[in-house]
Amino acid sequence: MSAADTKKEEISEKTRETRDLILRNLQESLGVDKLTKQLETEGKVAHVYWGTATTGKPHVGYLVPMRKIADFLQAGLKVTILFADLHAYLDNMKSSWELLKSRVVYYECVIKALLQSLDVPIDQLYFTKGTEYQLSRQYTDDVLRLSSQVSQRDALKAGAEVVKQVESPLLSGLLYPLLQALDEQYLKVDGQFGGVDQRKIFILAEEQLPKLKLGKRWHLMNPMVPGLTGSKMSSSEEDSKIDVLDEPEKVRAKILGAACSRDQPDNGVLAFYNFVLFPIVSPEAIVISNQQFFEFSALKQAYLDGKLDENALKTFLAEFLVNLLDKVRARCDNDIVREAKEKGYSKIVESEDVSSPEKPLPQLNADQKTWKERIQSGTEVFHEKDLDRVLSTVSSSKPLHIMFVAQGKENSILDSLLLFSRSNLFWIQESQSKEPF
Amino acid sequence: MSAADTKKEEISEKTRETRDLILRNLQESLGVDKLTKQLETEGKVAHVYWGTATTGKPHVGYLVPMRKIADFLQAGLKVTILFADLHAYLDNMKSSWELLKSRVVYYECVIKALLQSLDVPIDQLYFTKGTEYQLSRQYTDDVLRLSSQVSQRDALKAGAEVVKQVESPLLSGLLYPLLQALDEQYLKVDGQFGGVDQRKIFILAEEQLPKLKLGKRWHLMNPMVPGLTGSKMSSSEEDSKIDVLDEPEKVRAKILGAACSRDQPDNGVLAFYNFVLFPIVSPEAIVISNQQFFEFSALKQAYLDGKLDENALKTFLAEFLVNLLDKVRARCDNDIVREAKEKGYSKIVESEDVSSPEKPLPQLNADQKTWKERIQSGTEVFHEKDLDRVLSTVSSSKPLHIMFVAQGKENSILDSLLLFSRSNLFWIQESQSKEPF
Repeated sequence: MSAADTKKEEISEKTRETRDLILRNLQESLGVDKLTKQLETEGKVAHVYWGTATTGKPHVGYLVPMRKIADFLQAGLKVTILFADLHAYLDNMKSSWELLKSRVVYYECVIKALLQSLDVPIDQLYFTKGTEYQLSRQYTDDVLRLSSQVSQRDALKAGAEVVKQVESPLLSGLLYPLLQALDEQYLKVDGQFGGVDQRKIFILAEEQLPKLKLGKRWHLMNPMVPGLTGSKMSSSEEDSKIDVLDEPEKVRAKILGAACSRDQPDNGVLAFYNFVLFPIVSPEAIVISNQQFFEFSALKQAYLDGKLDENALKTFLAEFLVNLLDKVRARCDNDIVREAKEKGYSKIVESEDVSSPEKPLPQLNADQKTWKERIQSGTEVFHEKDLDRVLSTVSSSKPLHIMFVAQGKENSILDSLLLFSRSNLFWIQESQSKEPF
Repeated sequence: MSAADTKKEEISEKTRETRDLILRNLQESLGVDKLTKQLETEGKVAHVYWGTATTGKPHVGYLVPMRKIADFLQAGLKVTILFADLHAYLDNMKSSWELLKSRVVYYECVIKALLQSLDVPIDQLYFTKGTEYQLSRQYTDDVLRLSSQVSQRDALKAGAEVVKQVESPLLSGLLYPLLQALDEQYLKVDGQFGGVDQRKIFILAEEQLPKLKLGKRWHLMNPMVPGLTGSKMSSSEEDSKIDVLDEPEKVRAKILGAACSRDQPDNGVLAFYNFVLFPIVSPEAIVISNQQFFEFSALKQAYLDGKLDENALKTFLAEFLVNLLDKVRARCDNDIVREAKEKGYSKIVESEDVSSPEKPLPQLNADQKTWKERIQSGTEVFHEKDLDRVLSTVSSSKPLHIMFVAQGKENSILDSLLLFSRSNLFWIQESQSKEPF
């Protein structure tokens, strides 16, 4: 009997079961010994964190990590979800803090609804955001201390799979791995969970934090799962994602249009069965076209062998998702979510509607022309067509829906406000990112 | 008449003189137009900053930038000297904050005494340190914003001449240029002064800060001047530097031993005449061996032509320096400086004295041996010889001068303190850098 076997026998059956639940479907786990010890310790509640930047909107791809987080909660772990609002801010410096605040609220509501719809206890589920501590004196001190101990090469390597690889990489890309490592300390967690693309950052944390006497955590890694409707489900590509709050018809249409080739079985549809459906349904069977499947491998084999029709496979998944998202949407049917969505994602669609070719540009009178010139001379970021329409609306005395875009230092903002309040005019500006500034 | 000539005529004689004083002896200046405009503006006091990391001790090489700062003060500028204590801390993470605090006090006293001894008005001279604001939320936010806009390559290039070039460069080296650029904003200055080795950092500041709407400053650059007794005067090489508070005989000996080759006229001795002596003495003449020199170029030529004796040249410089440093030492002859020096630089010289071969190691009794073992088991950083001597001193009931080195997190420090207070013992530790931790 090997030493490892002896050790195995030392832990209780319950601990082993709990650990198996925590580790199932993961691609890799570091520090399992430590985790096991914590699970064995009476009165200890092991604490894990998962982080996400609040850039786009939660899509159904989130169900894969959420299903894992459901396992953690089911296993009795304390789970903290970190919304990296500071990272989101830095990622797109055009996002205002007001907007990012609303997005954090939106993310929290949707993710909470997702987990509740997965029928797991959420009394040990906590949410926080990066700006709660990432600009604190102590955190900054630790970031600087880390930066004095981590080489440029190591920081670069750590972020290689996560940080956008552009022609001229930004310095922030080197800092992110350090920030993420330090989050473990400041969230007071015992371990971190993420995609296996985070592996090098996890390794950096395991190597560097102990040098600053900031502890070493265990790390759990999900495999990288292809998106349902594309090679990678991205919140920034409208066509490739299914929004968590999408209407049933949209969900059905997108899934039926998804790639699910028998030649490339590593597709999103099959992955979803593996990482979302089976963990939810087990130990019951999934029944499609009168065939019972108790395990993913059996279903996959049947599909690859042609014993399972593509349409049937997709339809079952679509109905499953629609049913699940129905519950999520019901939980999100409240003013908090509506307001957060409106404030956090108010698209420039309205501006596009206004500029549809059907509506001709209005004629301006002398007064309006003078105002137009005055306003134009004060700003370089101006859409002429929008202005003409706005002036028309103002001249018709209708209420005007406006967005004021604060740019630059207080003085110039104040100047602009004064100018516009004097003129009774505002302008609508289209951002390059198709999202409000 | 060109446009530039026209412009020249627009400024007053007084502004031109002031500007000439500010710009004399500099190697390069950026944004002189802006500076000139500020000098012309009634009621405006232009504000410049110069920064230094409080690592070693101010040596006579500091007289070169101080002489320039004297020009700035004479010209009526407001001058802020920034002590980069955070940089010093990160540069050598073994430095305790307590020690760095004392060093800042020491630097401030000595530099103030230097400038006073140069007979310039110091009512517009201010001192501050990096930790006053460099760990603030706003500053950190700006550092992160900058890091999201500056490429790794640009940060690397900016710091190339200033940041230590080691085999595996640290991430902190990429951050320093950003911090230094932001200092301009947080010190609310109009311009920055530094060695021409800072040029790329200054350029980074001029290019990047405006993108964050944080203003663009002018930059004044001193040439790189060789050290008096070596190719570069470094505070970390004992033999190559003359401490500002060195005794006259030490100063004389070091200067007489300095290289001053006619084949290599870019030496420290001649440079000192150019950048320190002449600016101080002018418009009077420097008289050596009955020869009058009103300008450095004339003196240099005489020396190169062999019309001026090397010994005479060095002796004059030595006496000049001794005379100047006499005044500085007199101003520093007080308890504040003494205490700051003791706390900030308590060298291990004492420990070396103790370990001189004349004094044999004491015999330990049984009790002392037990203590020794107990203490040794608790720490890996221990000098056996020192311990034996310390134990001897303790056993003789003499008061023991100690330095407690706090390392690691609070718990382990507390443990160590408890251990040592129980044992009535402390230890002296020799740092690798030949300076106390």
